[in-house]
Amino acid sequence: MPDILHRVGIKSSPNAVYEALSSIEGLAGWWTRTTRGDGSVGGVIQFRFEPRGFFDMKVLELEPPRHVLWEVVDGPAEWIGTRVGFDLREEDDHTIVLFRHQGWKEPVEFMHHCSTKWAVFLLSLKSYVESGTGTPYPDDVKIDNWN
Amino acid sequence: MPDILHRVGIKSSPNAVYEALSSIEGLAGWWTRTTRGDGSVGGVIQFRFEPRGFFDMKVLELEPPRHVLWEVVDGPAEWIGTRVGFDLREEDDHTIVLFRHQGWKEPVEFMHHCSTKWAVFLLSLKSYVESGTGTPYPDDVKIDNWN
Repeated sequence: MPDILHRVGIKSSPNAVYEALSSIEGLAGWWTRTTRGDGSVGGVIQFRFEPRGFFDMKVLELEPPRHVLWEVVDGPAEWIGTRVGFDLREEDDHTIVLFRHQGWKEPVEFMHHCSTKWAVFLLSLKSYVESGTGTPYPDDVKIDNWN
Repeated sequence: MPDILHRVGIKSSPNAVYEALSSIEGLAGWWTRTTRGDGSVGGVIQFRFEPRGFFDMKVLELEPPRHVLWEVVDGPAEWIGTRVGFDLREEDDHTIVLFRHQGWKEPVEFMHHCSTKWAVFLLSLKSYVESGTGTPYPDDVKIDNWN
């Protein structure tokens, strides 16, 4: 099954990056301003991109400050059951983030869009952690006619 | 085998996007300023990113203004023999670019980096065609400790 893979390096500590990936406030700083829910293991985080759509993520695994894994429990049909993971480690004064969105059934056109869009949001994460200012939805970089 | 997939939408004509993907001057406007070689079918285009590295691409297919396909004939070991393709079509006042970098043997960490970096360069392509100004290497957006 095809996966979306990305790598960014953030000039900050693993703890700071982990906080941005695991707390509701942190997630709202780089992915979508309308983020709420329960970020603990077994909880569900609601990410809202009104009026375009939404994702509900169940938190499967948290290992501070190294690992975050979610499962998509509601949202676009192509996303349901897929898993989104972040693995962190230190290298050359950066925290390296290896990102994987796994479990897509087919490499549909929407997957191409989501791959580019994840890159945009991971660079928003980098900016948020390094400078305090990200570009979460609705202030995100638009990439195509699907936004 | 895992692939890198992306989708961008460019507010311009397929002809303008195709020109940026098939001419030496166009390619130098968004990927790397040091681009030279023979862009016709069967020719080899040299993309230079000194001092970091290089790619040599053999042009396999050109179908103006809809399709470009290259094969990597020299460069990093993980890239050799892989294929990079662009498919264009019009939709909603955009030219949609579907990008695929296919034939990776393994989803190595370098592939994660290249996936994010391709997104950055495809957004440079979008900017170059829409405004006349891209951010080709060495002026590209840096994403991690590998640049």
